[in-house]
Amino acid sequence: MTNNTFSNDAERGLLLVLSGPSGVGKGTVCSALRKKMEKLVYSVSATTRQPRTGEVEGVNYFFKSKEQFQEMIATNKLLEWAEYAGNFYGTPLQFVEDTLADGRDVILEIEVQGAMQVKKQFPQGVFLFLMPPSLEELRNRIVNRGTEDDETIRRRMKLAGDEIKLLEEYDYAVVNDQVEVACEKIQSIITAEHLRKDRILSKIKKWMNEVNVSC
Amino acid sequence: MTNNTFSNDAERGLLLVLSGPSGVGKGTVCSALRKKMEKLVYSVSATTRQPRTGEVEGVNYFFKSKEQFQEMIATNKLLEWAEYAGNFYGTPLQFVEDTLADGRDVILEIEVQGAMQVKKQFPQGVFLFLMPPSLEELRNRIVNRGTEDDETIRRRMKLAGDEIKLLEEYDYAVVNDQVEVACEKIQSIITAEHLRKDRILSKIKKWMNEVNVSC
Repeated sequence: MTNNTFSNDAERGLLLVLSGPSGVGKGTVCSALRKKMEKLVYSVSATTRQPRTGEVEGVNYFFKSKEQFQEMIATNKLLEWAEYAGNFYGTPLQFVEDTLADGRDVILEIEVQGAMQVKKQFPQGVFLFLMPPSLEELRNRIVNRGTEDDETIRRRMKLAGDEIKLLEEYDYAVVNDQVEVACEKIQSIITAEHLRKDRILSKIKKWMNEVNVSC
Repeated sequence: MTNNTFSNDAERGLLLVLSGPSGVGKGTVCSALRKKMEKLVYSVSATTRQPRTGEVEGVNYFFKSKEQFQEMIATNKLLEWAEYAGNFYGTPLQFVEDTLADGRDVILEIEVQGAMQVKKQFPQGVFLFLMPPSLEELRNRIVNRGTEDDETIRRRMKLAGDEIKLLEEYDYAVVNDQVEVACEKIQSIITAEHLRKDRILSKIKKWMNEVNVSC
């Protein structure tokens, strides 16, 4: 009987990619969301940097040697990767795949460039773009950071502008005005995406065969 | 300044088309949803049937003569229409268009055949398919209606099966197990649809020009 009910329990999870321009508050929103949604699985990154005290393999990071990391790149085992301050960071495909196959949703919090890499390999992901409340607010945040000169501010605004242009590649745009409100909106998006027709169509087709047989 | 904020206030409304197989509870869910969402505008139908006591023009129906109704069909002024028990019923396009242009969301509760007509003229609508909790439950509801013989039950199951096949044409599938839960899911869909990137992209492009000018 249970096979004939329209529950999504046996369905694959969703990959949620949370991105947006630098300084928009991706980390804050992601942390708040994980507190509200305990079942949401955070994608653990692989890195070549040394573990810090208290960091646990598979919880904070998957720690890899440079050789291992390069092997992962060469064999297409990363959804995206980047080099930062001499160390490599990346998103292991296997962890994401296993978690989704287990029916759990995965959230990946990532810079826009990395998100575009993910989209190439995983277009079925749900791509969320976090926006600043306004252009003025974005400028204020950049100016208020401190002692930047006009040239630096100009360069950062240009960069933010280029990053916002990438919104075109995303599915949803969520304004990060209040963290709590942004979280509620993202929760609605997750609920709605689970209700998209494509996700249950294969089950329906099975049903339909049974209707035909039983008639 | 307000033009540069990412609010959706000045955006068009959404047309929500709530449909599903006969007997699934479309009317009950639609009423419950309207109670919860006061701003949601119910699409008022046009009809050629006589007004009943207390019915108000433009609230319950737009009352039309047969000639007026046929003129509306001929001049493409209906999103969909059907004849039932000698009277015509249809959805006036103008009312929907005006309400959406005013930035308000419209809900249209309708049989699957009518919904398919709407989709042809208004593919940008959000099409919600209300599902029975299970195939067994659908059969129970049909059987429990009363004194139908086996042939009638068989025919109704076949019809319901054909109607469910049309799910393929919809955007979302919502199981009507508990009315309250179904309403919450539909509210999430409405929230999410308002956050779809396409709805704010034109505004973003305007922003981008300003970023470029100000750099």
